[in-house]
Amino acid sequence: MSLEARLLSKNDELAETNRRWLAERNISAVNLMSSPGAGKTTLLERTIRGLAGELPISVIEGDQETRRDAERIRTTGCSAVQINTGAGCHLDADMLTTGLATLDPPAGSVLMIENVGNLVCPALFDLSEASRVVVMSVTEGDDKPLKYPHMFRTADLLILNKTDLLPYVDFDSGRCLGYAEQINPGLETLQLSATSGEGLTSWYAWLHVQLPTDG
Amino acid sequence: MSLEARLLSKNDELAETNRRWLAERNISAVNLMSSPGAGKTTLLERTIRGLAGELPISVIEGDQETRRDAERIRTTGCSAVQINTGAGCHLDADMLTTGLATLDPPAGSVLMIENVGNLVCPALFDLSEASRVVVMSVTEGDDKPLKYPHMFRTADLLILNKTDLLPYVDFDSGRCLGYAEQINPGLETLQLSATSGEGLTSWYAWLHVQLPTDG
Repeated sequence: MSLEARLLSKNDELAETNRRWLAERNISAVNLMSSPGAGKTTLLERTIRGLAGELPISVIEGDQETRRDAERIRTTGCSAVQINTGAGCHLDADMLTTGLATLDPPAGSVLMIENVGNLVCPALFDLSEASRVVVMSVTEGDDKPLKYPHMFRTADLLILNKTDLLPYVDFDSGRCLGYAEQINPGLETLQLSATSGEGLTSWYAWLHVQLPTDG
Repeated sequence: MSLEARLLSKNDELAETNRRWLAERNISAVNLMSSPGAGKTTLLERTIRGLAGELPISVIEGDQETRRDAERIRTTGCSAVQINTGAGCHLDADMLTTGLATLDPPAGSVLMIENVGNLVCPALFDLSEASRVVVMSVTEGDDKPLKYPHMFRTADLLILNKTDLLPYVDFDSGRCLGYAEQINPGLETLQLSATSGEGLTSWYAWLHVQLPTDG
């Protein structure tokens, strides 16, 4: 077995343990992935405020360095734990174990895991998530699903973010969604702007479906 | 020695061999790195057209999949070779050896190496470059130097690209450059728009300085 295969197999074992831990508490985890600066943290801030009192959410934040994102999330009143990966390029199951022990998310809640900004490596690591969301900014160019297929192939939902910037960039949403469909047929998609608020209702509806139901 | 250290040490050995190969031909290599969609390819297309007849340039393109970027470069009349990394997240010295053998860049030229779009992993791998350029789009948020310090610490030049979008995004260039200076004191910086052409003259001047001089 190659070293990469052994590493991923070890990760999968730990992810199984975390998955049982989450299931016992009826917690649904969402693994949020994107390039740096696609707007994951802004989307989370807006979502937590928009769904306050409706949907119990807590957050694990991944970054190479700084505690900035967890601090931003906490100003919304939501519990958040920051994990710094140092030179590392993704969150893994072992880091999630540490994060869960510190965060202790409430039973029956949605756990949002904001991965390190990287459209490549995080795709390979199971974080016990119930669903994977890839966020793409319309400023990134419409060919990204073809150029980074591993990320788009394993996603459950693609969010095209920053639609408020569409008038100012050369981005063909239809072409981008066509490429995504080519890589991952049946992939769900949403278009929104975490800044202007456009399209957030559909995202909130999607999140409500993620809420675990007892039994 | 850890596996990561062994891997990097092996890369450094190969990079030394490539460095001698480039030196014998008086070729100066520029390693161009960024998040996906920061505008590296558009900058290269514009640069090659802008400097045609003035500065001999050839290009090695890195991507997980597709030959799109090399094809875009070739429409400018410039020689380009595409390297696909598959599941891999960065170019390494071994891939560069292959790329150099195929491309055979002319003596006395500038070799532009467009790395895989990833603000994390490529920072660790020596590609025999004379200089490292990190490109950041102003749509990515001004805190990126703090959150991805490894990339900014080893760069020689930071380009803030897409300045034409500044009126539409919440981005403080002064703050971003301040963070970059904090991570890498003395880092050179340029602000430009590969789309509108603003600021390109300074970039062209910077590139002219990279041109190898005989002896």
